[in-house]
Amino acid sequence: MTRYVYDFIEGNKDLKDLLGGKGANLAEMTRMGLPVPPGFTVTTEACRDYLRDGRMPEGLLAEVQRHLELLEARTGKTFGDAKDPLLLSVRSGGKFSMPGMMETILDIGLNDAGVEGLAEQSGDEHFAWDSYRRLIQMFGRTVFDVPGAAFDAVGPGEPRDLVNAYKKVFHDHTGRDFPQASHEQLFLAIGAVFRSWNAERAVLYRRQERIPHNLGTAVNVMAMVFGNRGEDSGTGVAFTRDPATGRRGVYGDYLRNAQGEDVVAGIRNTVSLHDLATIDPQSHTKLLSIMERLEQRYRDLCDIEFTIENGTLWMLQTRVGKRTPAAAFVIAAQLVDEGTITLDEALQRVSGEQLAQLMFPSFDTASAPPPLTTGVPASPGAAVGAIVFDSATAAAATEPVILVRRETNPDDLPGMIAARGILTSRGGKTSHAAVVARGMGKTCVCGAEDLILDGGTVTVNGRTLRAGDVISIDGTTGKVYPGEVPVHPSAVVRFFEGEIGAHGDPLLAAVQRLMIHADHKARLGVHANADTAPDAARARRFGATGIGLCRTEHMFLGERRRLVERLILGETGALAELLPLQRADFEELFAAMDGLPVTIRLIDPPLHEFLPPLEELTAHVARAEALGEDPGHDGVLLTAVRRMHEQNPMLGLRGVRLGLVIPGLFAMQVRAVAEAAAARAAAGGDPRPEIMVPLVGAVQELETVRAEAESVLASVPGAPPIRIGTMIEVPRAALTAGQIAGAAEFFSFGTNDLTQMTWGFSRDDVEGAFFGRYLDLGIFAVSPFETIDQDGTGELVRIAVTRGRAARPDLTIGVCGEHGGDPASVRFFHEAGLDYVSCSPYRVPIARLEAGRAASTATGSDSR
Amino acid sequence: MTRYVYDFIEGNKDLKDLLGGKGANLAEMTRMGLPVPPGFTVTTEACRDYLRDGRMPEGLLAEVQRHLELLEARTGKTFGDAKDPLLLSVRSGGKFSMPGMMETILDIGLNDAGVEGLAEQSGDEHFAWDSYRRLIQMFGRTVFDVPGAAFDAVGPGEPRDLVNAYKKVFHDHTGRDFPQASHEQLFLAIGAVFRSWNAERAVLYRRQERIPHNLGTAVNVMAMVFGNRGEDSGTGVAFTRDPATGRRGVYGDYLRNAQGEDVVAGIRNTVSLHDLATIDPQSHTKLLSIMERLEQRYRDLCDIEFTIENGTLWMLQTRVGKRTPAAAFVIAAQLVDEGTITLDEALQRVSGEQLAQLMFPSFDTASAPPPLTTGVPASPGAAVGAIVFDSATAAAATEPVILVRRETNPDDLPGMIAARGILTSRGGKTSHAAVVARGMGKTCVCGAEDLILDGGTVTVNGRTLRAGDVISIDGTTGKVYPGEVPVHPSAVVRFFEGEIGAHGDPLLAAVQRLMIHADHKARLGVHANADTAPDAARARRFGATGIGLCRTEHMFLGERRRLVERLILGETGALAELLPLQRADFEELFAAMDGLPVTIRLIDPPLHEFLPPLEELTAHVARAEALGEDPGHDGVLLTAVRRMHEQNPMLGLRGVRLGLVIPGLFAMQVRAVAEAAAARAAAGGDPRPEIMVPLVGAVQELETVRAEAESVLASVPGAPPIRIGTMIEVPRAALTAGQIAGAAEFFSFGTNDLTQMTWGFSRDDVEGAFFGRYLDLGIFAVSPFETIDQDGTGELVRIAVTRGRAARPDLTIGVCGEHGGDPASVRFFHEAGLDYVSCSPYRVPIARLEAGRAASTATGSDSR
Repeated sequence: MTRYVYDFIEGNKDLKDLLGGKGANLAEMTRMGLPVPPGFTVTTEACRDYLRDGRMPEGLLAEVQRHLELLEARTGKTFGDAKDPLLLSVRSGGKFSMPGMMETILDIGLNDAGVEGLAEQSGDEHFAWDSYRRLIQMFGRTVFDVPGAAFDAVGPGEPRDLVNAYKKVFHDHTGRDFPQASHEQLFLAIGAVFRSWNAERAVLYRRQERIPHNLGTAVNVMAMVFGNRGEDSGTGVAFTRDPATGRRGVYGDYLRNAQGEDVVAGIRNTVSLHDLATIDPQSHTKLLSIMERLEQRYRDLCDIEFTIENGTLWMLQTRVGKRTPAAAFVIAAQLVDEGTITLDEALQRVSGEQLAQLMFPSFDTASAPPPLTTGVPASPGAAVGAIVFDSATAAAATEPVILVRRETNPDDLPGMIAARGILTSRGGKTSHAAVVARGMGKTCVCGAEDLILDGGTVTVNGRTLRAGDVISIDGTTGKVYPGEVPVHPSAVVRFFEGEIGAHGDPLLAAVQRLMIHADHKARLGVHANADTAPDAARARRFGATGIGLCRTEHMFLGERRRLVERLILGETGALAELLPLQRADFEELFAAMDGLPVTIRLIDPPLHEFLPPLEELTAHVARAEALGEDPGHDGVLLTAVRRMHEQNPMLGLRGVRLGLVIPGLFAMQVRAVAEAAAARAAAGGDPRPEIMVPLVGAVQELETVRAEAESVLASVPGAPPIRIGTMIEVPRAALTAGQIAGAAEFFSFGTNDLTQMTWGFSRDDVEGAFFGRYLDLGIFAVSPFETIDQDGTGELVRIAVTRGRAARPDLTIGVCGEHGGDPASVRFFHEAGLDYVSCSPYRVPIARLEAGRAASTATGSDSR
Repeated sequence: MTRYVYDFIEGNKDLKDLLGGKGANLAEMTRMGLPVPPGFTVTTEACRDYLRDGRMPEGLLAEVQRHLELLEARTGKTFGDAKDPLLLSVRSGGKFSMPGMMETILDIGLNDAGVEGLAEQSGDEHFAWDSYRRLIQMFGRTVFDVPGAAFDAVGPGEPRDLVNAYKKVFHDHTGRDFPQASHEQLFLAIGAVFRSWNAERAVLYRRQERIPHNLGTAVNVMAMVFGNRGEDSGTGVAFTRDPATGRRGVYGDYLRNAQGEDVVAGIRNTVSLHDLATIDPQSHTKLLSIMERLEQRYRDLCDIEFTIENGTLWMLQTRVGKRTPAAAFVIAAQLVDEGTITLDEALQRVSGEQLAQLMFPSFDTASAPPPLTTGVPASPGAAVGAIVFDSATAAAATEPVILVRRETNPDDLPGMIAARGILTSRGGKTSHAAVVARGMGKTCVCGAEDLILDGGTVTVNGRTLRAGDVISIDGTTGKVYPGEVPVHPSAVVRFFEGEIGAHGDPLLAAVQRLMIHADHKARLGVHANADTAPDAARARRFGATGIGLCRTEHMFLGERRRLVERLILGETGALAELLPLQRADFEELFAAMDGLPVTIRLIDPPLHEFLPPLEELTAHVARAEALGEDPGHDGVLLTAVRRMHEQNPMLGLRGVRLGLVIPGLFAMQVRAVAEAAAARAAAGGDPRPEIMVPLVGAVQELETVRAEAESVLASVPGAPPIRIGTMIEVPRAALTAGQIAGAAEFFSFGTNDLTQMTWGFSRDDVEGAFFGRYLDLGIFAVSPFETIDQDGTGELVRIAVTRGRAARPDLTIGVCGEHGGDPASVRFFHEAGLDYVSCSPYRVPIARLEAGRAASTATGSDSR
């Protein structure tokens, strides 16, 4: 039969799957001989079975009863006893911390008889009745869903009176009396904790934190200790280091004559932990010694909860403590310095997401006014701008603007693109605004429910703002400030840029040290997606060891657009004019990346993207015709655009298809690459271009392009050897990678297109239209454009790597889709055996860190 | 060392890969003891090596020399002898017959000395010099590319004079004398035959016939026999049965005092083979006996070439003969009757493509005028209509029209859709017109080069036609007729429809017999794609055992479109109005398919397809605004269309996404299905609906829809059990088929979408834009929308079948894309282990036949 209950002495900190984090850590402390009140843990498996079957698993209650008897023996008290009752706390605790999301009930075991006994036994009537009052309140709320407000409405009073009033509230809402049988209280409480796993707020929290829904929570049952037994009692929380900055030295709060929940609720003023040295020097010394032992045991920052009952110290909880991104880096480096962990382990203590947080500019909150309100931090960053209330105004604005809407929809896209930031009064992290803003990397605060939008004004807590008023929004904290809050550039970015050194700054020194080690460990190279020499130079400063994607179509914009227009209208001379322009672009790029590979993708997008939109031309021409005017050049363009119009341009004439259909187009680009490389080489440089063919689905396409390209390359004297490879971005390319490898010296996954075609949706069309709904329904845990979908797109990556390498063992394989800079995806690419990832310059350090973390095999502690 | 040469006595008919068809069959006849002139075959491997290396394979010429010496010994003549020279024919012969595509050279070994010897030895000076003349001409053309016209320009004359004149032509064009060394002649001739494999016309032919390019040709070297040695000599071709109708009894032509090439060239009038009984009764008897033995040996219709030299019969070639589709069926059934082959083998002697040919309507050519011209038969069928010269007129026409263009481009699409048929003066089977017409299943003749189009008229061989003149085009033969040629409905279709019986008609009886056997053997079921009761009833008459795809969106067209419009404009009441309409449609469908499964696909296309096009509305509104008018309802619609506009609707809000985003839409459809089924069941019927969810990419989507559907189904009293399954049409569904099978009782591959997403191109956008180019470049052998691409789309099918069945062994798996009716694809689906294919009603018999053929394991002869 399955065993569902473990005494604290039976577990240890590595049993989080079974005992939850809290239970495992209580067990660990018990085994260390620390003063933990005795107790036991009901496993997560019991919870899963309960939720699956809708009833208590067979044998569970009998097992609880046996452990309860052990507890009675150990404490010398009896559960439900009228004279000196054993009282219990019942606390939830899943594998991953979900603070405040699930339930706690204290003082289980008290009833009308026991409260009198407790009063007598403790000599403290107030304490006894107050404990009973707390029990009725927590139990009512948690087990029977009695609204908290119903108890609050009773108001203050003597504990004994409150007990009577609360019992009435309980009866009014449940139709029954408060249960007097202590076992009934306990069993009902355990069931309520189980059910709290699926409470709406818990489900939402897990979705946001990407915690699986099928884990379940454990239930910790522990003998009560009381911090509210007088001035020689109290309760506190503490960290072994400063969780905000990582500074060494304990850090915490203490509250005399109080229970833990009073600290959490912030009901009364706490004192600094240091003051405990004066209040209770013995407990203080003991606590410091325990904290030191915990750090040694956990080899990391710990946070703890403790209670002092009549001068006796009890440890109620510990765990590896949450910390800010800056503290994560500083502490990891400190622990290495202290000899506690290795550099490999230190890499596991930080993450690319934390580094990304450190790279955003931030508001100088010291000089900021009090925030107007706080919404959901939906897409990080700090944005300042004038309020606009509609998309058209935003799109037309010349000054920085913040688009403020009740909610957004696809019509708002032009305004969202133009605005510095987006603020909405409705919706959460899966709303249209949030999903689209994250997709764009744009600062967004949403669901700021205090905002009242009313045709041209927004009122927030009584203050009215109008279009044009400047506000500042913080997508990392959700705060909304009036006026312009000064923005700090990130010190970490300035450090990467070489503008400041790391010396003397603990954070920068830690970042430097960990980045060096990450680079040392990494098996994955990190290249950058960059189309211009300045971008390439920045990428290089940020540590990129190559350009993994240079999009040549970006060289056809601006003034050069008219050349493409002429090309489309059939003027072949346009190609000859484009050649020297492209060549000059490449020369600059090769200079910036001298000695490093530069992968140049031949032109990819449909050519009609270079012409005005069909709808716009249609309206112009219709208007002209209605007025009897000559539509002129617009008429010519309309004919061309109509002819080239595609129902689904993403699935149309683009990529390698363009090269095979439009004579001379690819040849011109290949010639520009070769001539630029030859010129650089002649000037003493070391250009290392590679030519990449987009959208290949069949090896025959690549063979045809390769044959043409090779003959062009052979005709350019002085060009260095230039490798030719292909994007793997249509599913067929992945499936036939064995064939394609025969004609490709390298592969580069284009995971944006590959994701679009694997799922059959285009990012442009669906992200706003239904991703929010899909996130809400749990169909995605995260957008597949943000983190690679391992089962779908990732499966094609694995297939292509296996088949490609089988056919050509020395094949170089990289990725240049946006996933190349996403931490979780980088780890996947490492595991899939890729050679490098390529990402935007600002993501390069993040990818470097993650590449090092993925390669470093040490198992670190779980820092959630 | 590789052996490159085989004597005829060493081979047999099963060595076609190595010896080519002609060589293998010559060897077979030699082994049978038939009178074949002695000779040997140079293998296809020698050809492949020659073409790979650009020179004769090492040792080949020495091997040829050894076999030549054997030949000399056997004939008692010497190659290059001046008195009585051994003369040779050199003929190409690949694995598959490519009639007229490659080269033949006769009389190799003659020279200035030998011709005198031959004249003396034969006593026929005219014959000797005429043979020499033929050699110079064929050798010059074939080996040295001397233009045929240069020889023709010499005109008629005495053979000896012609020899001199031809030698001068040879010298003028090659700069050298005609080679006198007989070995040089032979070796050059062998090389020329090798090279002819890659001649442009041969490459084009192979592409059209889907013959691989890497096979190479064998070379057959044979002692010459002469049909031009007088009135007791001659040459002929014969079939063992009538290749046009399949009628029993030999059939052929004979030409006295002539060589085979004279028959082929049609220079002189032939007589019927029966007349040979009078001319040379002994040879005639012997020939009939040989033909009977050949039929027994090949167990099929054979065609032969023979020569009689001074009363001695020689067999020069045999092979399994080509035949019309009708003859294929008739002969296969006859051979079964005669006890020659089994019914399993008979199935291998016919094909779905042949059956398809028999199902097209055809012109009554007996009452047709002489054709105006003949073009490339690009897309089969018989179309009659008035000439129109531009797409707009075609699109606006109310009478049947034929669109006549020099060539077509994407602008012509509306006209191509509206026209009955398409006729062009330019381009071949891979031209835009051909590719698009085949895609639409529309009759098309292209590349009719005699047509001279001249702004509003077309002149053909001096006759001028104008817009409005009626023509008839035959897409099966390429013929273009003036006026209206009566069209015969297909007898085979009338038979399937039950309008006529098979009794007394050999073709229909054969079709009936083979279809019964195919159904008996088939493991694949055949369902139909049908949306209406009449279509379903036809499909059932044609042998469908279910509806594999009912597209419910087709129930939203016509008058009902306004309801969808209201739904889109946010009027939820529209759903309630749609419910009874859908229910009535389903009731009719279930009645037509009583007792058989009807798979109903929930609505799939983006809803904006039900609104007017964006461009049209934009123009209306712009025009109205320019004129200061109120755009009215168009304005409302334009806002809605703009809001719903998608860059790539194929990758947008459609399929299951619609169902998850639009409340009540799928529920309404599920309810209509359930209520219709309940009503039919209450009326004593046996409705068997299944519900199919389109465009699923993740199991969570399907689970969500399933949960909603199950609750709707449970709420309809009297509804029969209804299975719920999914389309597999996005690559991710195939890759995660193991997960999806957990929520699906059946899979149905949507291979149209799956092909689009696997390749990353949409049929609409690319078929006309670049498929022709891709076919020309050999990137496709055939459009992947026509025959399933086994390496790409097919690989996903295999993956999905394997993973789906592993997760749910009793999963039903079918296909409902257009590939379900394509013969080659049906075979693939059989091999992939599917349970059924579903196709349009008219393709049902074709799929049935192919399903039977795929399951029947007999190896039949190759009838190419």
